[in-house]
Amino acid sequence: MRIEISTIFTGIKAQQLPALIGILSKAKDYAEQANIDQAELLATRLTEDMHPLQWQIQATLQLALRGTMRLAGQEPEDLTIDENGFDAIIARVEQVLAQMEKFSDDVLNQHAIDVFEVPVGPDITMPMTGQEYALKFVLPNFYFHLTTSYNILRMKGVPLGKRDFLGAS
Amino acid sequence: MRIEISTIFTGIKAQQLPALIGILSKAKDYAEQANIDQAELLATRLTEDMHPLQWQIQATLQLALRGTMRLAGQEPEDLTIDENGFDAIIARVEQVLAQMEKFSDDVLNQHAIDVFEVPVGPDITMPMTGQEYALKFVLPNFYFHLTTSYNILRMKGVPLGKRDFLGAS
Repeated sequence: MRIEISTIFTGIKAQQLPALIGILSKAKDYAEQANIDQAELLATRLTEDMHPLQWQIQATLQLALRGTMRLAGQEPEDLTIDENGFDAIIARVEQVLAQMEKFSDDVLNQHAIDVFEVPVGPDITMPMTGQEYALKFVLPNFYFHLTTSYNILRMKGVPLGKRDFLGAS
Repeated sequence: MRIEISTIFTGIKAQQLPALIGILSKAKDYAEQANIDQAELLATRLTEDMHPLQWQIQATLQLALRGTMRLAGQEPEDLTIDENGFDAIIARVEQVLAQMEKFSDDVLNQHAIDVFEVPVGPDITMPMTGQEYALKFVLPNFYFHLTTSYNILRMKGVPLGKRDFLGAS
């Protein structure tokens, strides 16, 4: 069974990443109002042995951008968020959205049945078709890190609701 | 652009709900080893004004089952988890998997372009095509509650890793 892989990335571009921008804007406002240091908020973890918020946002963007590039047959470029503060990170989300727009739906869909060697751990790759990669790897991981980012901010008191998570749908 | 809606639910059936069973089994084992009351674990929230674990699992299953039924053109049946303890909840996940298996891919895909009135809040419905409902509503919400369930258990010390979240892929 074959799906239009591009549909998955259309959702990320049209719904989830714009929602992330909204979430980060509210986090910034909340930090200002509650007099919380932005760096402290971005360094918050759900629990000691999980990654902090800034890393979770980075992973979310990596999956969106590197996933798109890999599916388009390009070498995925590095994406590290070393900026400080919410404004700079929001600008990075916007930059990723612009980069994703460069790849047409047709280019992504052409590679649905091609096999990719996907890094799944340190020094480990796994062969997956483009469709498997998009549905079984990019999508669950993308939502995992997006939800974890949201959950960290909720835990810290940022006034967010499910509507913020879902974005304009 | 039209996709095979069934592919979304195939992933939920083959990958994410079996992964949830594995996660809940590890939670049960951990509760026994660490001498934590199962009811206490199931009542844990990430933060005061978020729903507890048992509710998050219920929401995950509701999206999977009721989503499938609605797309198959049936009235979605109620799904409330009022069982106690992990064994009973794992049995509910297995039951939902069996119920989902009753609906063929063809039945789901037939309704991709039909318009559904989807409840999105108390007394509010929103018209969506089957494809929009599956991709923009069921999928993000399903992953949201699945990830939040995982995050609550991680926060309580259950030894889980990304591989548990992704399941057999």
